[in-house]
Amino acid sequence: MTDYVLNTWYPIAWSREIGRKIEPRRIVEENVVLFRKEDGAVVAMEDACPHRLLPLSLGKLRGDTIECGYHGMTFDCSGKCVRIPGQEMIPPSAVVKTYPTHENMGLVWIWMGDPTLARTEDVFDLAQYHDPDWSVAEGDALYIKANYLSLADNLCDPAHVSFVHTSTLGNAASEDIPVHHEEQPGKMLTWRWIIDAPPIPLFAKFGNFKGNVDRWHYYHYHAPSIAIIDFGSADTGTGAPEGRRDNCMQIYACHFMTPVDAETSIDHWLHVKNFQATDEINKALSDQFRVAFAEDKMILEAIQMNEKTFADRKTIKIAIDAAPRRMRKMVEKMAGEALA
Amino acid sequence: MTDYVLNTWYPIAWSREIGRKIEPRRIVEENVVLFRKEDGAVVAMEDACPHRLLPLSLGKLRGDTIECGYHGMTFDCSGKCVRIPGQEMIPPSAVVKTYPTHENMGLVWIWMGDPTLARTEDVFDLAQYHDPDWSVAEGDALYIKANYLSLADNLCDPAHVSFVHTSTLGNAASEDIPVHHEEQPGKMLTWRWIIDAPPIPLFAKFGNFKGNVDRWHYYHYHAPSIAIIDFGSADTGTGAPEGRRDNCMQIYACHFMTPVDAETSIDHWLHVKNFQATDEINKALSDQFRVAFAEDKMILEAIQMNEKTFADRKTIKIAIDAAPRRMRKMVEKMAGEALA
Amino acid sequence: MTDYVLNTWYPIAWSREIGRKIEPRRIVEENVVLFRKEDGAVVAMEDACPHRLLPLSLGKLRGDTIECGYHGMTFDCSGKCVRIPGQEMIPPSAVVKTYPTHENMGLVWIWMGDPTLARTEDVFDLAQYHDPDWSVAEGDALYIKANYLSLADNLCDPAHVSFVHTSTLGNAASEDIPVHHEEQPGKMLTWRWIIDAPPIPLFAKFGNFKGNVDRWHYYHYHAPSIAIIDFGSADTGTGAPEGRRDNCMQIYACHFMTPVDAETSIDHWLHVKNFQATDEINKALSDQFRVAFAEDKMILEAIQMNEKTFADRKTIKIAIDAAPRRMRKMVEKMAGEALA
Repeated sequence: MTDYVLNTWYPIAWSREIGRKIEPRRIVEENVVLFRKEDGAVVAMEDACPHRLLPLSLGKLRGDTIECGYHGMTFDCSGKCVRIPGQEMIPPSAVVKTYPTHENMGLVWIWMGDPTLARTEDVFDLAQYHDPDWSVAEGDALYIKANYLSLADNLCDPAHVSFVHTSTLGNAASEDIPVHHEEQPGKMLTWRWIIDAPPIPLFAKFGNFKGNVDRWHYYHYHAPSIAIIDFGSADTGTGAPEGRRDNCMQIYACHFMTPVDAETSIDHWLHVKNFQATDEINKALSDQFRVAFAEDKMILEAIQMNEKTFADRKTIKIAIDAAPRRMRKMVEKMAGEALA
Repeated sequence: MTDYVLNTWYPIAWSREIGRKIEPRRIVEENVVLFRKEDGAVVAMEDACPHRLLPLSLGKLRGDTIECGYHGMTFDCSGKCVRIPGQEMIPPSAVVKTYPTHENMGLVWIWMGDPTLARTEDVFDLAQYHDPDWSVAEGDALYIKANYLSLADNLCDPAHVSFVHTSTLGNAASEDIPVHHEEQPGKMLTWRWIIDAPPIPLFAKFGNFKGNVDRWHYYHYHAPSIAIIDFGSADTGTGAPEGRRDNCMQIYACHFMTPVDAETSIDHWLHVKNFQATDEINKALSDQFRVAFAEDKMILEAIQMNEKTFADRKTIKIAIDAAPRRMRKMVEKMAGEALA
Repeated sequence: MTDYVLNTWYPIAWSREIGRKIEPRRIVEENVVLFRKEDGAVVAMEDACPHRLLPLSLGKLRGDTIECGYHGMTFDCSGKCVRIPGQEMIPPSAVVKTYPTHENMGLVWIWMGDPTLARTEDVFDLAQYHDPDWSVAEGDALYIKANYLSLADNLCDPAHVSFVHTSTLGNAASEDIPVHHEEQPGKMLTWRWIIDAPPIPLFAKFGNFKGNVDRWHYYHYHAPSIAIIDFGSADTGTGAPEGRRDNCMQIYACHFMTPVDAETSIDHWLHVKNFQATDEINKALSDQFRVAFAEDKMILEAIQMNEKTFADRKTIKIAIDAAPRRMRKMVEKMAGEALA
């Protein structure tokens, strides 16, 4: 098993997906079921009956309890067995593991580590998500056959945009612009500015810039599984690099990663923008992101395969690797601390 | 390799499937071909030419011999090579392993163990199968991605019916009725009676009961691979529990299991009933069983997967496990004896 | 990893498949990209960027360089990195492995071993391929889930034709005719003559023989991956066995094998014949070969599977195995020499 950071809040599902039926999910190599109680709270349990290991996701929701689909053993929201049909005595070991959950930003978050350390105030938040001057649109839960840290590499790496996303998020103007980075506690910030250059295709399509723009990409990575890409543009010469970004187009592309197993991750993505958007515009924007993230997916999955094919190949490092490499050390340290 | 009981007769195919062509099958992790000789007897051989290991199932039936599809080496029904094209000398090691077979109850039975111990009088039989007062209908060869002993668990376990087969073979009335069991040499009997309760859906549909019934389920498991489920109902108060079952509806649901490999089994099932049935009724009954056995299949396959996912998880035991646990010990002992 | 002969020219693609785009191929368990330079020469490189291992086949061809699809690192035809966007310094280890290539007989050939030993004059050639009195038709690149040496066994074995290819290349007349063989440096010749027998189906269809023919099969195997099957027929009594083959029908069925990995090979096949053929005739002939080679594929793939199923089974040897066994020793010796 990979060493995952366990004492952290991971996104596991869209809130809208969880209701009054039992939903199975997989995260950090564990199988989990989710359902919404009658009072609306989300419950998470291990997806296995302690009797014969039948997935509880094949059982029935009875009020706020799950009845196993094989012999009717029934478990309440704390995981305690409250019924074994045909017998009075319930063994004290008849318990299913449960996990703390919380909802924010349209997502269900789960805590897979020591439950006594789970504080809901630590669940990630982005202020603009709740700001009426900004608008929000949910994207997809993108399934990627690659380790989530390979996706995290990508999200500490503004440079790839110039080559991978040329039809949407990048263009040739940025190819040779160096990337900066700064490590902060539990975070990695990478960024670059492209000054006085044509707008990227997405902004050319949805903004109304007259000519060249000053464009920024700030990648805020929050270890281990969150990345907020702050990117935007303003007409060149209006002072955006100096901080006057009022009259600009700005988007937070938010990536909430679920590490499924060593070779699989899910990217729940959404976008928050400093302008109101019709459903139509939101759909059009999301379609642009879909194109871009499908490009990332193709690359990450191809790398995942080649990492197996060339298992003992020593790779070379270049300048833009500085941030991803420090990010990986940070995550490794976090995973190690929990074990110490 | 799993430790299989080898000195036993296993069902391997429906008799009607075996004719004048070479049929491949897999059982206890061995590959076998079957064909019917000109005199009607069924021959079983290993499915590999001893020369290059080409499956003999890709060869040709020539009279009562098989000609290998690669170089024409030809083997008679005893497995002896009788021709090597292009050479006179036939090496004495040019022999294919053969297996004893026998037919009964519409099935071909095979003996995978020591052939000197194979006695055709030991092939399983159910008297009612041949009784003109009873009628028979063959079901399917249901392919299940689970170990056959997991299926055997299920067939030593009347309790699951109340939760798994609620639309066909069970109903809520039996949920809390305890199960009895009794070990006999090479057999495990489990049973329960449900007194004065509504008939199960299958009997409500095909019987003509006026009101509540007394219902029985007797599961006769014959180690290692046969289970005969005797179940039926009679109008409450007519004395069925005391033995007066003349005016009742009774079915023997017969399960003949082929252990294919550690994770695969085939359940050849058929039903024998104490009433005559038109083809239409038989088909309708079989369709009900199909629904029920598909439910078992789903559960057994999910458990098989979770047993891998939670490979070192210690499960809990409840009252209804007594019979399956003793059944597994019995089979283990039988498998061990052959090795001793 | 299997021990492959590396210091040899292997066929890797049809020449017509390689143009101004990047084509991925796999050979001797290595992943390779091919493309044609602006001057027409074929370049072969390892299919992995030395930075993050992204397959270069997902990159872009820029003139005679490949730009990696992730960060734009660019490699020239010698494999040297000539650009890293965003930085000046190019580390000397930023190099992709390249492989010598050559074209002949409509195929691209590649040298996977020590490049200093690659001599293009050693690339296989068949004089008749270039002879205007003969005509050529390319067949397919047949993908076979079997080790290439199992295919080589088949191509040192004229005897199988009588049993495997009865509708095309063989008939019962040859079943009992012994096979001869002769080992030559780096070659294995196997052959037999069938005198005064009906023509095989393919010659009955495309030749105009009046009655019986004298037929020959000469299998010229060139270790490790080439086999030229010289087969033909002439009217019986016209002196073909004594060497007078002028008035005959003769075909060279050429097999150029690519060892992909231990369980996969590709057979690039074509035919060269001593008569002119319309496109229609060539297509009809190729269709006959397709039938025959699909039969070989089925047999080789079944054997490959059974070699796993019966991994420790000792097989028996018969007379026709002499040539394949010596062939295998020859190839083993060649593979070992490179390591010594």
